[in-house]
Amino acid sequence: MAAAGATSPASSMFSTAIAASDVPEAGPERCDGMIYNAAQCIGPDGECLGTHRKLILPPGFEADHFHPGAGCTVFTYRGLRIATLICFDIEFPETARHAAELGAELLLVPTALGSQWGWVGRTMVPTRGFENGIFLAYANHSGTESGMSFLGESFVSSPDGRELIRAGAAPAVLTAEIDVTLVRAAQARLPYLADRLKIALPSP
Amino acid sequence: MAAAGATSPASSMFSTAIAASDVPEAGPERCDGMIYNAAQCIGPDGECLGTHRKLILPPGFEADHFHPGAGCTVFTYRGLRIATLICFDIEFPETARHAAELGAELLLVPTALGSQWGWVGRTMVPTRGFENGIFLAYANHSGTESGMSFLGESFVSSPDGRELIRAGAAPAVLTAEIDVTLVRAAQARLPYLADRLKIALPSP
Repeated sequence: MAAAGATSPASSMFSTAIAASDVPEAGPERCDGMIYNAAQCIGPDGECLGTHRKLILPPGFEADHFHPGAGCTVFTYRGLRIATLICFDIEFPETARHAAELGAELLLVPTALGSQWGWVGRTMVPTRGFENGIFLAYANHSGTESGMSFLGESFVSSPDGRELIRAGAAPAVLTAEIDVTLVRAAQARLPYLADRLKIALPSP
Repeated sequence: MAAAGATSPASSMFSTAIAASDVPEAGPERCDGMIYNAAQCIGPDGECLGTHRKLILPPGFEADHFHPGAGCTVFTYRGLRIATLICFDIEFPETARHAAELGAELLLVPTALGSQWGWVGRTMVPTRGFENGIFLAYANHSGTESGMSFLGESFVSSPDGRELIRAGAAPAVLTAEIDVTLVRAAQARLPYLADRLKIALPSP
């Protein structure tokens, strides 16, 4: 997975699906008078496999200009159930849990995480995969743009928390093998999704 | 914070509050015919400052013998709002979020985490503090008991994710300074608690 233009030949070049956008993090989508911060997943034949609208818009530019999405959708590619979250979305455990409860086995996360947020990219985001027993592909922007510096360090992680591969600060194309049986194994070893249904917490 | 017997003089010796139990992880509490896996926080004068009943019971011995708790309670000690979670509770983002939304600024977590779960103690549990902008005191069992080996590595972490102190594999008494203004600073810098209220996710 890599962030790339929706019309980019990259998906065909690598014969795989990629999360696509035309801005560093994702791209705008206009629908019914609303504008969304949105991402598409493009298959090797150029077809759109799935879309996502960013759920949680940080205050300021994004909250002023975009309308939030209303949940995740799951699509299937080569038998693997996939959902997308965009950037800030993944920092909330509620969103990754939501996607996993919909059946996602792999989360694609195009993002533009600033270089000051190493803690988020190295500790918090990997936790999202582990706590749901799913694969995670976190594709971050890198370098500097408009005076902002980005962390890079895109990675793919396994449902048991192992990092399969992690980039450095420079742009990179990463590949990793996704063995879907590891999702079942992780979710059986630590049945967080089943056990969490037992939690009955009163609202504050 | 350290795991210790409820009648231990440790709280007075260290002139501070400690989470107390009489088994490695916490202690049983019998009430209205139910038995709970429960913990108390004991102040320096031996008074009980607060209690917690474990919310999520792993299948097997615990689920067979204990009744689950029905939520957290927050108590105040030296102006600091404190809640407790026990062991497996903290592995679920829902429980720490629940405690933070009740106003907890420090989570006390007595636990008995096995030595094979280093990922949980080093990556997942610290994330619970960061994603809510609160202090965390994770007091783990160490050494071996009944053929089981425990991780040790108790720690105290700051709301911005910094580890203030972390033990090794051996028993230890840890002390750390809790500056409650750091909670406000972390929650202002990354307003996860406020922003999460904007999430509207359909149930699967």
